[in-house]
Amino acid sequence: MNVLDLATPCLVLDLDRFESNIERMSRFAKSHSVSMRPHAKTHKCVEVARRQIALGAIGISVATIAEAEVMAAAGLRGLLLTAEMVGEPKVSRLMRVMSQAPDTMVVVDNPENVHELQRAAATAGVQLTLLIDLDIGQNRTGIEPGEPALHLAEEISRARNLSLKGICAYAGHAAHVVGFEARKAASIKAMGQALETRDLLRRNGHTIEILSGGSSGTYNIDPEIDGVTELQSGSYVFMDVEYRKIGGQSGSVYQDFEPALTVLSTVIHRSQKKTIVDAGLKAFATDRAFGPELSDVSGVTYTFVGDEHGSLKLENPSREVRLGDKLRFIPPHCDPNVNLYDRIYCARGENVEGFWPIMQRATGSPYF
Amino acid sequence: MNVLDLATPCLVLDLDRFESNIERMSRFAKSHSVSMRPHAKTHKCVEVARRQIALGAIGISVATIAEAEVMAAAGLRGLLLTAEMVGEPKVSRLMRVMSQAPDTMVVVDNPENVHELQRAAATAGVQLTLLIDLDIGQNRTGIEPGEPALHLAEEISRARNLSLKGICAYAGHAAHVVGFEARKAASIKAMGQALETRDLLRRNGHTIEILSGGSSGTYNIDPEIDGVTELQSGSYVFMDVEYRKIGGQSGSVYQDFEPALTVLSTVIHRSQKKTIVDAGLKAFATDRAFGPELSDVSGVTYTFVGDEHGSLKLENPSREVRLGDKLRFIPPHCDPNVNLYDRIYCARGENVEGFWPIMQRATGSPYF
Repeated sequence: MNVLDLATPCLVLDLDRFESNIERMSRFAKSHSVSMRPHAKTHKCVEVARRQIALGAIGISVATIAEAEVMAAAGLRGLLLTAEMVGEPKVSRLMRVMSQAPDTMVVVDNPENVHELQRAAATAGVQLTLLIDLDIGQNRTGIEPGEPALHLAEEISRARNLSLKGICAYAGHAAHVVGFEARKAASIKAMGQALETRDLLRRNGHTIEILSGGSSGTYNIDPEIDGVTELQSGSYVFMDVEYRKIGGQSGSVYQDFEPALTVLSTVIHRSQKKTIVDAGLKAFATDRAFGPELSDVSGVTYTFVGDEHGSLKLENPSREVRLGDKLRFIPPHCDPNVNLYDRIYCARGENVEGFWPIMQRATGSPYF
Repeated sequence: MNVLDLATPCLVLDLDRFESNIERMSRFAKSHSVSMRPHAKTHKCVEVARRQIALGAIGISVATIAEAEVMAAAGLRGLLLTAEMVGEPKVSRLMRVMSQAPDTMVVVDNPENVHELQRAAATAGVQLTLLIDLDIGQNRTGIEPGEPALHLAEEISRARNLSLKGICAYAGHAAHVVGFEARKAASIKAMGQALETRDLLRRNGHTIEILSGGSSGTYNIDPEIDGVTELQSGSYVFMDVEYRKIGGQSGSVYQDFEPALTVLSTVIHRSQKKTIVDAGLKAFATDRAFGPELSDVSGVTYTFVGDEHGSLKLENPSREVRLGDKLRFIPPHCDPNVNLYDRIYCARGENVEGFWPIMQRATGSPYF
């Protein structure tokens, strides 16, 4: 089947570009002696995770208990849950994942949550490995660096079924800083707090083997920071409009990785006044100030005009756009964009080789 | 099971409010002699559609061929596809739906598409009923009113397997006009163009039995316009922050229908500086300038801070907010918000009675 015969709107992965992206990241990590535990929140797809592992990743980072369940059930190991598991049913679900994938690690940022996890781990009879989630400036989850983190480490060390293994320090605020030098400065400043806390914890007798961080924007910055042991970059597999805007070491477009993922859409209205495609705000992520970018015709801009509709402005189109044409768009922001689809169609050139399922939406498997 | 025991983030439907909403709309339509063909793009849920039909709706409007397939397979009839079916595989899929639900109608706005549909209908040996999609100011799909629409009607009348039955005139630009009187003026102006075109087509011998239009914002405006035969309102079943902002006939909050749908979320970080919930931009629609509104605590505002995270500002909270608390939020925009979930949990008071599946994402069933 040809790509242009697919039902639209749909997600299409260019396998050549995708393979080039994951191989490039793998080579980079190996040559810089940093481990990869890439983030599955980007793709929510077992098949992508398997290929990352095959190229040397030591595990997979996940953002939800549902992602952990899907990856564990598929046989993937070395899982790191980068969000706090607070309350039920999350904690019970985590214990069930532990019985399948005992090396699963989870982050923690609160003593109350340490006690909750200890009670559950004791009841389940498991040993749970934790990383301290450190807020190094993103102002989201995470405990403050320094003394608060040390007190949390002490709480963990008193919990019989919990083992502290390191620190998770995600500088989300640095990932999309525009311009390589500015981004480097932001990441070094943020990660500096993680290094200081690591040293403080070590001086107090705690084991800090792991310092996990990094994004697709800082993959080539963080390994130069002494002490970062692994990267959890995710978006590099697909890329998106947002990452292309941040600029590379040379040039205003970030081209270290190629845009491998597109949304295929059909022109369903074409008149003198209007050109409308069948991909709207249920087909593209809408969380950024910008929309998708057309990848195979230049001189055309896209505007959201409804759940199932986008409007094209043909300013200086590089080719004619006709009713029924199939057009490809680079998603504005890949993570929430992938989340809008049930599968990724895989294409080698223009030939569709098959599709990979994307896991269920939101909380995943029903709780009852 | 209690609502607060559900895995978060999840969609929760308050059944009492939901039933009150659909009963209220049903009573209104009956007393104003207008038919209901409510839009399933809002809910993408067979169980909701069945309840709308049970209360007297003459059919269901759908926005995609996948929605039509799901509704037809579930035995629902009187389907109206409010988007143009252009190109393959849409046209072939439409023919398969016709074999199951022969009274399915589809909109058309282009002579080229008329010819495409005629060829497919002839090959399939079916008679396809069309409505002309009229652009009455939304500037999305739709042919221009007046002569262009008349020419299209003439094309249809020459096509042996196609029958023109009416006009679809959706004034999406009027639906969210703030203030009842301003909204009424906008809708009357828009629908006036549909009435003129209807009269022009009738004078030229075309059958216009159906004039379909209306939104949840104009449900009590459009039936007063002579000639509107049916309403395709959708959002009234659930409501959202956006519709509440448009104002009612009295008062600045639109309260004709009650907010029946909420997203349940867990507080996963609580410290002096920050309060973070596990519902972010994969849990809420992000296509509007505003976020969700907390429904069970006042004096708190929500900000998106990531795919899986939202930050709460506790300005003047009406109660204490603690780690692990489950909080309910009214979605910013219900249609794309529902689209982020696999199921709607149904609650009677605080008791979860079960859940209704939401159909697949995007294009629906795989094309191969």
